[in-house]
Amino acid sequence: MTIRPAEKKDVPELLKLVKHLAEYEQLADQAKAKIADFERYGFGDEAVFNALLAEEEPSRRAVGFALYFFTYSTFTGKPTLYLEDLFVLPEFRGRGYGKKLLKKLAEIAVEKGCARMEWAVLDWNKPAIEFYLSLGAKPMEEWTTYRLSGEALSRLAGEG
Amino acid sequence: MTIRPAEKKDVPELLKLVKHLAEYEQLADQAKAKIADFERYGFGDEAVFNALLAEEEPSRRAVGFALYFFTYSTFTGKPTLYLEDLFVLPEFRGRGYGKKLLKKLAEIAVEKGCARMEWAVLDWNKPAIEFYLSLGAKPMEEWTTYRLSGEALSRLAGEG
Repeated sequence: MTIRPAEKKDVPELLKLVKHLAEYEQLADQAKAKIADFERYGFGDEAVFNALLAEEEPSRRAVGFALYFFTYSTFTGKPTLYLEDLFVLPEFRGRGYGKKLLKKLAEIAVEKGCARMEWAVLDWNKPAIEFYLSLGAKPMEEWTTYRLSGEALSRLAGEG
Repeated sequence: MTIRPAEKKDVPELLKLVKHLAEYEQLADQAKAKIADFERYGFGDEAVFNALLAEEEPSRRAVGFALYFFTYSTFTGKPTLYLEDLFVLPEFRGRGYGKKLLKKLAEIAVEKGCARMEWAVLDWNKPAIEFYLSLGAKPMEEWTTYRLSGEALSRLAGEG
C-alpha cells in the first residue's frame, strides 16, 4: 500500500470516499460538499485542510483517506493536528490501512511540533473506539461540542 | 466596551486571560503556554489562530477574549469557525461582553463563508450551556473527542 498527500487532481476520488464515509456514519443526507469546495479549501490560497490518500498496490486504487488541519491548544501553547475524517473502504479493512494513515499523521504532528492529535468519534462506532483506545488515545468525556449553524448563526451575526 | 482583533503586543495580556480561564476550568496545571508560543502561532508566518479582545471603556482594560481558528467540514464543504476559548473575567460578567464577542465571531464566520461555528463546553458549566442553548446552538451529544498526546503520540509516530 502507498500513503501519499492528496493533490488537486485527486479531489473527485477524495469526494467519493467522503460520500462513502457519510453513508457509513448514517449521515449521507448531510454530505453536500462539491468538487469546487474541496478544490478551493484544500488546494488554493484559501486552503484550510490537508489530506492523505491510501492506495492499494499495484492497482493504485484509492481505498482510504485521512483529512486533517491544524488547530491550536492555548494550554499547551502548541498546534494540534486535528483529524476530521479517517476512512477505509469496508472491503479493505483489517489490512492495516487505517493504522498506516494514523501513523503517518502522528509523524506529521511530531514534525510540526504539535502536542496532540485529536478527532471526534460517533459513540456507537465501537470498532473504531477500541482501535483508538488500543493506540493510547483518551476520550475527552467531560466535554461536549456545541454547533451554531443556519438560521441561528445568521441571526446572531445580524443582531444589532 | 470595545471588541477588537488582538495584536502581537497584546500577547502578555491575552496569556493572562488564558491563565484565568484555565483556573476557572479547574485545569490550571495544564496551562503551560508561553509568550513566545502565542507570538509564534498567533502572529507570525506560522500563525494558526486569531483572537479578539474585549476592552472596558474608557479604561481600555482587557476583560475578556475569544480565540478562534478555521477548521473544515467535509460534509458542508465549507470552513467552520472553531471557537477554542471564550472568557470574560468573573467581575465583568452579565454586562454583555460574552454575547458581543460571540456576535462578532458570528459576523466573521458569515463573512468568511463558514457554514458553522463550533466550540467545546465542559459538561458541568451549566451557565455557559444555558447561554449557548439560548443562542440556538445544538449539542453534538453522540460524538466524543479522542486525544492522543505525549508518549502515545511519540510511540505511534515512531513505530516501524
